[in-house]
Amino acid sequence: MQVYLNGNYVDREHASIPVDDRGFIFGDGVYEVTRALRGHLFEGERHFRRLGRGLRGLGITVPAELEQLGEISECLLRTNGLTKGEALVYLQITRGAAPRTHQYPPAGTPPTVYLSVGPFTPPHELRAAGARAITIPDVRWSRCDLKTVNLLPNVMGKQRAVEAGVTEAIFVRDSAVTEGSSTNIFGVVGGELRTYPACNYILGGITRDVVLELAAENNVPVRTTPIFVHELGGVDELFLTSTTNDVMPVVEVDGHPIGGGTPGPITRRLYEAFARRLDRVGG
Amino acid sequence: MQVYLNGNYVDREHASIPVDDRGFIFGDGVYEVTRALRGHLFEGERHFRRLGRGLRGLGITVPAELEQLGEISECLLRTNGLTKGEALVYLQITRGAAPRTHQYPPAGTPPTVYLSVGPFTPPHELRAAGARAITIPDVRWSRCDLKTVNLLPNVMGKQRAVEAGVTEAIFVRDSAVTEGSSTNIFGVVGGELRTYPACNYILGGITRDVVLELAAENNVPVRTTPIFVHELGGVDELFLTSTTNDVMPVVEVDGHPIGGGTPGPITRRLYEAFARRLDRVGG
Repeated sequence: MQVYLNGNYVDREHASIPVDDRGFIFGDGVYEVTRALRGHLFEGERHFRRLGRGLRGLGITVPAELEQLGEISECLLRTNGLTKGEALVYLQITRGAAPRTHQYPPAGTPPTVYLSVGPFTPPHELRAAGARAITIPDVRWSRCDLKTVNLLPNVMGKQRAVEAGVTEAIFVRDSAVTEGSSTNIFGVVGGELRTYPACNYILGGITRDVVLELAAENNVPVRTTPIFVHELGGVDELFLTSTTNDVMPVVEVDGHPIGGGTPGPITRRLYEAFARRLDRVGG
Repeated sequence: MQVYLNGNYVDREHASIPVDDRGFIFGDGVYEVTRALRGHLFEGERHFRRLGRGLRGLGITVPAELEQLGEISECLLRTNGLTKGEALVYLQITRGAAPRTHQYPPAGTPPTVYLSVGPFTPPHELRAAGARAITIPDVRWSRCDLKTVNLLPNVMGKQRAVEAGVTEAIFVRDSAVTEGSSTNIFGVVGGELRTYPACNYILGGITRDVVLELAAENNVPVRTTPIFVHELGGVDELFLTSTTNDVMPVVEVDGHPIGGGTPGPITRRLYEAFARRLDRVGG
């Protein structure tokens, strides 16, 4: 498998970074996971725009490659024989390698740019049955809008989900459902689609944005206002969104069934609309 | 310069980690910075105990080296000719390299163990004059008691200090001074030494612990209760503590002088007691 690292295409086994890379020492970087179908990116431009916002938000030098990330991604897909079915592109940019100091390194320190690809199989079986989730306290910092590799609370949250035998851990801050450990959360309450507003307490997912567009196109009323924990028992439908989950029904939270305990009709309609968007990629 | 990486002593230029190390991908690891004098560690056992607590807190496999970290550190100091004056030992342990998933990798995935050393010069001149600081909002997560490499808010805080031309950025959460971007904060208020209590909102520094002991030995009354922002204008003395700062007077915050704008007597007494402890290392 070939990966891209700082201007070179290299074998994965030979892709290594110096121990003083600030990604390793401080988690000082941003990342994106992008879906690819038939060798082409799904919503690549939105991912790269968000990446650019993250770089500027952290004050990381924008690397020369920023405009070429789409080309590099599709080149990696071709090189690795991933142009037939589905694939994922992982992309990470850190503030580069430099002697350890908390403050930013001297101007001119080149950022580290890393891309890799791998095959992907969408979770269709889980989608048919619906996923289960638990709620956990949202202990994260208050800049969740930056897609950084400071991911420990997300890692610990997902691990709690795995240990509980469920798919996702849903963060709750100040009694409100913010998002999942690597997903956004939507609910249908009284015929309205609800999700936490885009602000510093959630990562504004690309899939979330597309679903909001699809809701408008399909005349599903939307209110970007939180679902509160005390409302969870009464929501008609619940689903999560992410690059690897698309639109995934959630049928149980903390052991209690959601809606009728089966995927709901609005969730299904939005997933079908989403699947049609995916079908258009590279078409 | 030689470093230690996963069982081997290697040249720093050849010390590299795979791109899928979870330290790089998730900031999934813990670290310590330990002071060394004349080739011997200062409070090494306390650093290693805290490291062990962090590993258990994050569910990272305790590496075989845990009991040898003192020996490895002192071996690195000797190998690199750092047994005469002062030095720093940097130590980081991550959850290891594995294909990217948020949840923990399969049991048996070996943690990554990295140690490096470097010369160190204590900031005596700054201590004589006293440091300046700014206050910034404490946007961190609520597990600040874990010394992890998820350090972005600390990095961004220190950068704000540097851009403001001062030494440290002091975090304020719910109107209380919690700690600095890489230091603990103490104040003298009405003859009492005050500092934020050891809990999930601060990293319990080793230097902080030693200073609390020294205060007791020197009959300085201590209350581990926060200094609130509105009190800063009225504190008699303020100082910060850390492995690289020892006891460092703070004489100005946000442009306003603290106490008389010069280092205070209790701060000086505690620093002198601390310096005597340092003098005993390897003696």
